Amino acid sequence: MSLGSSTSQHYKVGIVGASGYTGVELLRLLAGHPYLDLVVATGDSKAGTAIADLYPSLAGHYKDQKFQAFEPEDFDGLDLAFIGLPHGLSMDVVPRLRGKVGKIIDLGSDFRLTDPELYPQWYGANHTHPELLGEFVYGLPELFRDQLIGAELIAATGCNAATSTLALTPFVDGGYVKPEGLIVDLKTGVSGAGRPPKETTTYCTVSDNVAPYAVLTHRHTPEIEQAITARTGTEVSVLFTPHLVPANRGILATCYAEPKEPMTSEQAIEILADFYHGEPFVVVNERVPTTKVTVGSNTVHMSARVDPRTGRLITMASLDNLMKGASGMAIQNANLALQLPEDSGLTTIGVYP
Amino acid sequence: MSLGSSTSQHYKVGIVGASGYTGVELLRLLAGHPYLDLVVATGDSKAGTAIADLYPSLAGHYKDQKFQAFEPEDFDGLDLAFIGLPHGLSMDVVPRLRGKVGKIIDLGSDFRLTDPELYPQWYGANHTHPELLGEFVYGLPELFRDQLIGAELIAATGCNAATSTLALTPFVDGGYVKPEGLIVDLKTGVSGAGRPPKETTTYCTVSDNVAPYAVLTHRHTPEIEQAITARTGTEVSVLFTPHLVPANRGILATCYAEPKEPMTSEQAIEILADFYHGEPFVVVNERVPTTKVTVGSNTVHMSARVDPRTGRLITMASLDNLMKGASGMAIQNANLALQLPEDSGLTTIGVYP
Amino acid sequence: MSLGSSTSQHYKVGIVGASGYTGVELLRLLAGHPYLDLVVATGDSKAGTAIADLYPSLAGHYKDQKFQAFEPEDFDGLDLAFIGLPHGLSMDVVPRLRGKVGKIIDLGSDFRLTDPELYPQWYGANHTHPELLGEFVYGLPELFRDQLIGAELIAATGCNAATSTLALTPFVDGGYVKPEGLIVDLKTGVSGAGRPPKETTTYCTVSDNVAPYAVLTHRHTPEIEQAITARTGTEVSVLFTPHLVPANRGILATCYAEPKEPMTSEQAIEILADFYHGEPFVVVNERVPTTKVTVGSNTVHMSARVDPRTGRLITMASLDNLMKGASGMAIQNANLALQLPEDSGLTTIGVYP
Amino acid sequence: MSLGSSTSQHYKVGIVGASGYTGVELLRLLAGHPYLDLVVATGDSKAGTAIADLYPSLAGHYKDQKFQAFEPEDFDGLDLAFIGLPHGLSMDVVPRLRGKVGKIIDLGSDFRLTDPELYPQWYGANHTHPELLGEFVYGLPELFRDQLIGAELIAATGCNAATSTLALTPFVDGGYVKPEGLIVDLKTGVSGAGRPPKETTTYCTVSDNVAPYAVLTHRHTPEIEQAITARTGTEVSVLFTPHLVPANRGILATCYAEPKEPMTSEQAIEILADFYHGEPFVVVNERVPTTKVTVGSNTVHMSARVDPRTGRLITMASLDNLMKGASGMAIQNANLALQLPEDSGLTTIGVYP
Repeated sequence: MSLGSSTSQHYKVGIVGASGYTGVELLRLLAGHPYLDLVVATGDSKAGTAIADLYPSLAGHYKDQKFQAFEPEDFDGLDLAFIGLPHGLSMDVVPRLRGKVGKIIDLGSDFRLTDPELYPQWYGANHTHPELLGEFVYGLPELFRDQLIGAELIAATGCNAATSTLALTPFVDGGYVKPEGLIVDLKTGVSGAGRPPKETTTYCTVSDNVAPYAVLTHRHTPEIEQAITARTGTEVSVLFTPHLVPANRGILATCYAEPKEPMTSEQAIEILADFYHGEPFVVVNERVPTTKVTVGSNTVHMSARVDPRTGRLITMASLDNLMKGASGMAIQNANLALQLPEDSGLTTIGVYP
Repeated sequence: MSLGSSTSQHYKVGIVGASGYTGVELLRLLAGHPYLDLVVATGDSKAGTAIADLYPSLAGHYKDQKFQAFEPEDFDGLDLAFIGLPHGLSMDVVPRLRGKVGKIIDLGSDFRLTDPELYPQWYGANHTHPELLGEFVYGLPELFRDQLIGAELIAATGCNAATSTLALTPFVDGGYVKPEGLIVDLKTGVSGAGRPPKETTTYCTVSDNVAPYAVLTHRHTPEIEQAITARTGTEVSVLFTPHLVPANRGILATCYAEPKEPMTSEQAIEILADFYHGEPFVVVNERVPTTKVTVGSNTVHMSARVDPRTGRLITMASLDNLMKGASGMAIQNANLALQLPEDSGLTTIGVYP
Repeated sequence: MSLGSSTSQHYKVGIVGASGYTGVELLRLLAGHPYLDLVVATGDSKAGTAIADLYPSLAGHYKDQKFQAFEPEDFDGLDLAFIGLPHGLSMDVVPRLRGKVGKIIDLGSDFRLTDPELYPQWYGANHTHPELLGEFVYGLPELFRDQLIGAELIAATGCNAATSTLALTPFVDGGYVKPEGLIVDLKTGVSGAGRPPKETTTYCTVSDNVAPYAVLTHRHTPEIEQAITARTGTEVSVLFTPHLVPANRGILATCYAEPKEPMTSEQAIEILADFYHGEPFVVVNERVPTTKVTVGSNTVHMSARVDPRTGRLITMASLDNLMKGASGMAIQNANLALQLPEDSGLTTIGVYP
Repeated sequence: MSLGSSTSQHYKVGIVGASGYTGVELLRLLAGHPYLDLVVATGDSKAGTAIADLYPSLAGHYKDQKFQAFEPEDFDGLDLAFIGLPHGLSMDVVPRLRGKVGKIIDLGSDFRLTDPELYPQWYGANHTHPELLGEFVYGLPELFRDQLIGAELIAATGCNAATSTLALTPFVDGGYVKPEGLIVDLKTGVSGAGRPPKETTTYCTVSDNVAPYAVLTHRHTPEIEQAITARTGTEVSVLFTPHLVPANRGILATCYAEPKEPMTSEQAIEILADFYHGEPFVVVNERVPTTKVTVGSNTVHMSARVDPRTGRLITMASLDNLMKGASGMAIQNANLALQLPEDSGLTTIGVYP
């Protein structure tokens, strides 16, 4: 954590809401980032607590620093601020930071949906700053890189939406599948639910269990639809069914669609491979993607199959929800916003086993 | 383990292949069964090993008994034999036992498919006794109880097929859904893969992971189709995609279908509830089924939803793959075959957490 | 759950605090108990909630019953009450139930220590009813059976204390080891921490982790010392160090002591075997005890070794903390108190794997 | 993986036995190492298999490389070779590599014990090259750094020995504790048992379980004793009892000793802190060490306590067995041997949660 002057190569950054799981992952990544220097890390509920006491995993690097209470002036003059707050909080934080910092990257959902009507429908409350929605760029570099380069305001993609959207978009974009009733059967580890303890996230509840949740009503549904449509120009409808599985990290999306014309598994894999050709954080292969191989990396693994018996397409993607699904994605966005090498501070290699 | 004379109420039973996971579960259930007395338990690879040494969980009951090598004469005169062997072995054991024992219940897949052509297609080898296929009754009591009462030869349902078939059949049977391209996205614990160590079942491979497997090619696909069609008279096609999750026991099937006519979630739940009304081992509820609540019980939990946005039906079922998906199901079949109370020796309550 | 009149064989029982993990385990065991009929189950924080909604594992048996708010009069005339409340609550509940019910079995720690001074020292508060401490019998049947037969007030042993005490007592009792500085290195699953979510029991905190906790200060320390001394008449001192491991159920105590005279592993095992000869819920063997084999059973597994290099004795015990460490133990105590067969409603067989 | 010419800063390295878990971890670390360039990676049982197919976690970096069969000439002229073979194999590989490569770092146990007599006693077979034992330096930098700088032959410390030795040595070295009968109660994750499937490492065996193993007979016992004695000059005897717990990575050693003079917890922590002052990969703190915080890092976490009731010292250490306990340690050794910055290519930060 450098508090010194930044050179032409270095940028000063801060984190609002650094004590949650996306925050600790940002702290981990920033400790190894060659160009970004952390200046301030806030965590209101943990203000005054040493970072190393809450997260001993960071003790080898963050020896004395503490989480601070959020004060906008602490961010004055920073080049970039990451926001890692629960839903509903960053919509009021962004206006307080804007003008003080060069760039803002919000890891939450407050600025992902462009249509303000969707907030009361899916989140149960009106957006307090709908005028800002149109100013944010959606932070999924593989689909919207051009808009992200140099962007000032970025809404980093949600973990479920990233996985699902990356798996489905190539097939919608090429007009290969019917766009209605796309099915996403998603399996996710627990860290996506955050650090605060809940009845649904205790060890005894989660271990040795598989549990569908938020069936029909999950808030990432409109985000998936919006992202696919924004990229492809095709209206789609998605049935998104997440399942909680006993894993720390990792999301697997198994998506089902109906091809318009007969297609082979080889062709389906080729469509994915062509679409993501040259992407540094995408691996397309015949191998079926699994979640554990992604842990700690910023890589998405993808494959596809077509069932000759039923004619259905299965397209699958896996990633680490705290990396490519959150903090790694946010760093990738920051690199684009600041026009740094896109893979700065990010690894493609997972910690396995 | 009683070796004494059987009264009019008691029946002598044996197990071929008792050293695997379905075998140890049978041993556990038989220890508490009021009418069935275990006489012989074979396990060729573990012959001479004390049951309690291989499975200390059984040490409080099976104090001195050992696994024996399989000798058909040891089964002479028994009322019933359970067979818990890997695929391809029971097709040759059944002819050697038939005539010696009153009833045979095979927990494997050798006698589940009625069309001999399906064996080379899905299992890669011809059936050695196709003439016996027609004599076996398919052991899924909730759908085929009438045929199971007093039956002599029973092929107990596979764990994946039981979960999927129970979830889908009520909707196909009532003509509520289109029968083609039914999607079964299944999540299963590891014990279904059996006791012998494999690269795919080590702790480091399975833990913290979600992995699709046998995509497009899983052998339970034709079993699901056959069972639904046998019960409903409707030809169906199913895309079955299993995923391995880090759990000992438990299967969840999330099934997707297209209703022919608009339907509500309430109606869908009602269809399930009506179909399984009075079933001792089925719980239908608004609650989304999960796997952990089924552990150690013979109960299937089910629910359903209809998405008003996409019009799709989701029907879900969960069970313990070693109980209702294997050994508990086999005991239920034995009770029916011997015309005992159907729930003898079985519990509806799971060990939770 | 029978609400009907009890015959000479049947006893009416109630549970105060049935919504926690020891409560749900009591509900599971009572559903299969041949002589005990549940009449009332309270759970103040869950009053009005259906048992099956909080614990779908019980849905096959408890179809409509709800948790009630605690009202002492609901227990009027019952033969026995189980109390499964957090520490500090049952000391005030017992006086309100006494006289109304025949027997009281407290699963908590409020009446385990006989010396009132120990409560402020280890629990941080004075006991509000110290006059009752002397009336309770300590509920560890293998060591104190004579006092438990027909007892009116029983303080069921804590899970850590049961495991440790059973492993060490035979060696202290026979005078084989030095009684000072006995070391208990204990590993426990998470369910012992109860159902309410805490920072220390979330999946992400517990999974893939081993964590010592309450080092030097764990409240079960004086309980272990008191129990060993009460049985053997020898003053002992114990260093008790528990570790939280990623498991639902199960405790393993690895205990270290210094033999007074040289001893072999065979002799050590023999000392255990002789001490527990004939005990229905104890398995002593050369096999090293592990936790998973105990899940769902009321059995303790034990073994011992002596290291010829250092001369130290290792004595080990494992059990299911919700069964033999809590609710199974409580049922065993109830059977003794009501002079029923001691193993009524209890199994020695674990659900494995 | 660079195959190009090495600059003055770069060194060419190879791995013998790269397909096991220590191998994949070396591959991961080398991909990010600034000075070491991988030239060859052998894996006889997987020769011809693409690295990315066996370990998709590496697919983002190792796109086309395959495991090769071991041929000593492929190592000709390399600056350094890592050997990651099962016990008993590297003793014959080292003589075939020596002279061809600049440095050899063996991650196995073949060259850790200096007394050849210990091999038949603990490993059951004579050493085939006892003349080499004296030439190897024991690779635990925190205790033997001076000998490791520039060393040619290094036997990297075993994971259990590293954890235990680091926790105990400061107290033996200062003469604070009695050196006989030191107790190490160790808890370890499963990856230390390697990649090949075994009955003891399947998911169903390991999950939800705690299991002592190799009680009295574990081969790391003499390694711990030798290392402590080599550093301190004091003969010690250790009772080492490892337990397998359900975790991928991570070792916790809970060590018990008797102080010669009364000591406080604060003093004990201070002894650790002083001994490891300035060490880049050691964190000493009041916080009790746990395993999960070490995952993916090369950091050891340590603390200690003294029980005023029994007078015993507890000293505890945790680390990631594949990092500081194997491959991270080996990289640290390589950095010292090649006189590079000791922390090159290594992180102190764990991937959490």
